[in-house]
Order: sequence, then structure tokens, then C-alpha cells
Amino acid sequence: MTESPLETCVVPWSYRDGRLFLLDQRRLPHEERLLECESAVETAEAIRSLAVRGAPLIGVAAAFGLAAEARRVAERVPEDLDAALEIAARRLLNARPTAMNLPVAVARMLRVAAGTTGRRAEERVAALEREAAAIAAEDREACLRIGRLGAVWILRRRKDHPAGAPLTLLTHCNAGALATAGIGTALGIVRALAAEGPVAVLADETRPFLQGARLTAWELMRDGIPVTLLPDVAAATTIASGRVHAVVVGADRIAANGDVANKVGTYGLALACHAHGVPFVVAAPTTTLDFACPDGSAIPIEIRRSEEVLSIPTPAGGTIRLAPEGVSALYPAFDVTPAALVDAIVTERGVSEPPHDVALKAFRP
Amino acid sequence: MTESPLETCVVPWSYRDGRLFLLDQRRLPHEERLLECESAVETAEAIRSLAVRGAPLIGVAAAFGLAAEARRVAERVPEDLDAALEIAARRLLNARPTAMNLPVAVARMLRVAAGTTGRRAEERVAALEREAAAIAAEDREACLRIGRLGAVWILRRRKDHPAGAPLTLLTHCNAGALATAGIGTALGIVRALAAEGPVAVLADETRPFLQGARLTAWELMRDGIPVTLLPDVAAATTIASGRVHAVVVGADRIAANGDVANKVGTYGLALACHAHGVPFVVAAPTTTLDFACPDGSAIPIEIRRSEEVLSIPTPAGGTIRLAPEGVSALYPAFDVTPAALVDAIVTERGVSEPPHDVALKAFRP
Repeated sequence: MTESPLETCVVPWSYRDGRLFLLDQRRLPHEERLLECESAVETAEAIRSLAVRGAPLIGVAAAFGLAAEARRVAERVPEDLDAALEIAARRLLNARPTAMNLPVAVARMLRVAAGTTGRRAEERVAALEREAAAIAAEDREACLRIGRLGAVWILRRRKDHPAGAPLTLLTHCNAGALATAGIGTALGIVRALAAEGPVAVLADETRPFLQGARLTAWELMRDGIPVTLLPDVAAATTIASGRVHAVVVGADRIAANGDVANKVGTYGLALACHAHGVPFVVAAPTTTLDFACPDGSAIPIEIRRSEEVLSIPTPAGGTIRLAPEGVSALYPAFDVTPAALVDAIVTERGVSEPPHDVALKAFRP
Repeated sequence: MTESPLETCVVPWSYRDGRLFLLDQRRLPHEERLLECESAVETAEAIRSLAVRGAPLIGVAAAFGLAAEARRVAERVPEDLDAALEIAARRLLNARPTAMNLPVAVARMLRVAAGTTGRRAEERVAALEREAAAIAAEDREACLRIGRLGAVWILRRRKDHPAGAPLTLLTHCNAGALATAGIGTALGIVRALAAEGPVAVLADETRPFLQGARLTAWELMRDGIPVTLLPDVAAATTIASGRVHAVVVGADRIAANGDVANKVGTYGLALACHAHGVPFVVAAPTTTLDFACPDGSAIPIEIRRSEEVLSIPTPAGGTIRLAPEGVSALYPAFDVTPAALVDAIVTERGVSEPPHDVALKAFRP
């Protein structure tokens, strides 16, 4: 397989001289606007508000947010660097609770800070910036490996698929270039498969933030990969129809036993796949694995604001109310898919097949 | 149980002097505007455009649409009445393909027309208007019976439910007063239960037309029944959480074997209920039963326009684009839930329990 997918796909972040630039994902597909973060506070707000999202990219953004914060503080009050980083880390960790990549990235950055105490502030900032860049580079490489390993796994599982006929993959939310520092996890697999033969993607629109309609559709169209949107409610019947060859999704946190927390709606897809013998594939870097969580019940699930369900933002910056005044909504942003429903967990270090509680041990750091 | 729910709930239609007034459901909850139909063409357009929706109410609207058409033609060219009714019937039948109540109501009206040939046009129109009124009255009574029978069935199934604790019911789309000529089917059961003790309703928002967010929330709030919205994607995890005591939905057409066509998304709910032992209850008048369909594969499933998924109407009459230009969407408006996943089909003539292919025979006309 070639690495060509990497050349075409969008890069939703950059960092230069203490400034983190993030493609504001709230504004896609209508507008490609960059958001500039020069501090941890701004970065945490970008994460909280979903301007930047996707578990691996949240980790990368948090790392650069800490690097930017370090530079900002080092230039003004270098003696406060350690205290400032500690406060900044807490603020970033509080931005969103579910994605594992966030605490993993923050912990790496704090280890570098701790390992450089006593050195000049400027050197320490440079070390932190190198660490953030390493986190991004590793995620970029992990996506490429996940893409290749996942593509091989699906092609093996679908070895009777007629040559030349498009392989139809259904995905949920956005686990693509917009969610990572590379070609994506689930969409990394899609891109690797697209390099091998024709693919067609069915993308759940993914209410309420519409990551599928706004982000997955946008990034796949940009790369020339055929994509059709589905209302989330249509996924189960579409899987039942036999037209879906595999479902591929990302993950925000995976427990030691293989239970998978991912964007709410994932569990319903897994149930439908199970009922119809369609492979259900989770793609995630090992930074998503949380061996401290024995199972999914220990994964913190973010509950977001009712208002995000009750109205919809307009490109002009206003909102359209969808529901009667006075009603409230329940919006868990993630759900947990039991390990037993997951046919493969594709990481950059290999593919876990059931029983995942045993197979995942090989990926323990 | 009392019949009090009927006194409070909204009546979305009325008919007077050849004019059918329909509460325009596209405009709810923002505005209560009446749409006036004086012909079958206007009524068919109201059905096609979803100004009026809900399988039983579509049947009632079609019946009155034919009555209005008959009066219109009888006043102008009485000799054309039979030909006009035949054309009008075809037009109404073509408005939407899935709801069984539509062909059932149209067939009843055509039988009355056929049974009155040779009589004065004025008499024939009066007979047609009486038949339409009878269809509505029967649906009203059916809803009351369905409400009582369904409430008894659920209370029996949930007999260990602690007294005084709210019974939590999850529903999809709108199978309420806005979908029928009475208290609703699924919401008829909710209303009957609410007359017995505390209930709490979780309503799927039901993309893309948002019947749950716009209609179910509105009509339950109007009646003082507690309702909380859920993004459709959150239903499976909410059912898994154990907080849902039963799922109650309506139906657009039920095959002889008990397979149920209902608003797309219903099948996913049934899978989740099955996985977690939560009763899955379908509520529908016997006018929804189609014994000519041996199973769900014979039920025609309406595919609606991509555009209804890709943009959202604004109260001001415009639309907000949700997805990139050039993408398309797949929008089957209904799905089929296999009979094996349905714990009860509640009709006005009794409750069918599995095996439904046997039990439903008792409701054969």
C-alpha cells in the first residue's frame, strides 16, 4: 500500500512560535477559519467548545496548548513555569472527560516538565515543544499503521468480495484527518482501502454536532472518496439490508476488557452489526487504551448541555430552535459498546480480536 | 381508567362545508397555523409534504380530502363525480406509499361512492362525508381502547414497579394526538398510564423531520406530561442504562406475520430493547394491519428526498444547509422491525403477543 492518502488529506492544526492554529470545526463545512490559541486557557476552551475534537487530535492540541502556555509564561514570569503548567494541565484535563488521549498527552508533557526542572526556561520550553511535536508525529504514524492493518483485516474478512465492486463502509461521527494528526483512524482504514480499490462510505450524520454531515462528508469529498450521508436512524435498517460490508468507527477510550467508549450512537451500530453478521471494527491508537479502567462502566461519560440538542447553529452565528421552549434534553456525548460486540480493535501495534481482555494485554505499555 | 386524556389533547383537524382544516405540522412548535384543503389535490399535497402525517391521521385526512373533492365536483359538474373520485383516490394513494391506513380509508370511501351510484350528487356527498366522519370517530375510539389495553399490558409486565415512582417510557417519532383522530396510539398508552400514576417520557428527536422534538414534546407539554428529548443516537445507551421501563411506538403498516414498518429508527430501538430485556410495544389500530403482506419484505418503504436530510427549515421559511454542497443522503423514511423483536402489538381489538403470525389472525377482518 502506498502512503499517498497522507498527501491529500487536510491537516487541521499547526504550531509556530508559541501559537497553536486550529481549524475551527464548528464552522465547517461552511467556512475554513483558523482559531489561534496562545495559552492553555484558549486551548482548553477550543476543546470544550468542540472547535477542535476527536480523541487523538484533542491529545495533540492539549500538548501544544501546554507548550504554548510554557512559552507564554517563560517569556513573562519564568519562575512561575512549573506552577503555571500544573494549573494549565488541570484546566485542559477538565475540558472534556472521556477521551483518554487527553490525560495521556498531558501526562507526557508534565513528565518532560518534571525532567527538565533546574534548566533554563527557554530550554524547557523547547523540550516541551519537541515533546508536543513528537506526540503529533507519533499519532500521524499510528494512523498510517492503523490504516494499513485495518485494511488488511477487512480485506481478509471480506475475501469473497467481488473484485472491482466497491467495498461499502459505514462510519459514525468523524474519526478522520479532522480527528487526528494524520489520515485518521476509522477514515485511515477507509483511505488505505481506497488506495487498493473502489470504496463507498456511508456516513451517519451524527446528531447533534453533525460530525458526519459536516466533517466526514467534507474531508472525504475533498479527497475524492465517494460518501453518502445517512440520518443516524437509518443506519440499522441499512446494515440489515446487506449493503454494508463493515462498520468502522474510532474510539475515545477503550477499557482493559475491550469495552469501547465512542461517540454516542456507536453502541446501536454494534448491535445492528451483531444481528446481521457485519464486521464491527474499532480503530484507535494505543493512546486510547485505558488499562486502569477494568471495563466500560469505569469510563467517565461526558453529559453535554441540553441546549446543544434543542437548537442548531446557523452559519451566520445565530441559532435555530428545534424544540418547544421549556423542554429539556438528555445528551450523553458517548456510549459504551461491550467488548463482545467488537470484532476487531485496530491499533498501530496490531489488531485485537476477541477475547479482547486477553489480546489487548499485548499492547500494555 | 378515565377517559379524561381525550378532553385535553390537541385535535389537529376539522372539516366543515367541504373544507378540511389541518394543523400544519411543519410549522410546529413555532406556530399553530391551519392549512385549508378544498380538494383532493390539496389534501394529497398536505400528506406528501408532511403538513399532515401519522398513519391513522393520514387515513382520516384522505377520507375528508375525498369528501371535500366530492362536494367540490358535485357543485360544479355532478356528472363527473365518479371519474373525479377515481382520479382523486389515485392521487391520494400516490402521496405516500407506506402507511396502510391510507389505502384502507380510500377503499372505504370508494365503496360508499360505488354503493350510492344513481342517487343525487348531494346525497352521495353527504354519504361520503358521513363515512369520513365515521372513519375519524372509529379512530378516536380505537385510540382510547389502545390506550387502555396497552396501559394494562405494561402495568402487568411491570407489576414489580415501585408504586409512586414514575414509569419511564421511551418513544420515537410522534404516535400521538397529532398522528391520529384521538389521543394517539403510543401516546394513547402514555396518556392512559398518566391517568393511573406518574409517568416520564423520553422522546427521540427523530431526525430528519424531528417529529419527536417538534411534535411529541409539544403535545405532551401541552398536556402536562413530563417529557425529555433524546438525540436518536442516545436511545440505545439510555435503554442499556436500565432507566427505560418500556418502549412504545406506533406503526405505519404491520404485515401478517407481525413484522412492523414504522418511522425509520424503530428497528434500532427494538434491537436495544431485545438486548436488555425491555418490553418493546407497538400500538396501532387494526386499520394498520395488512394481511396481504405476508412479511415485512413486502411492505413498500418510502424513500424521501436527500434534501430533507441535508438542510433544515427555519421558522422564517428559509433553510439552513447542514452538509457540504454536492453530497447526497440516503433517506428511507421507514424501517421494518421483525416480529420476533416485538413483545406486544396493541390494537383496539386486543393485544397480540408472539407468535404474532398466529395471534394477529384474530384481528383479520
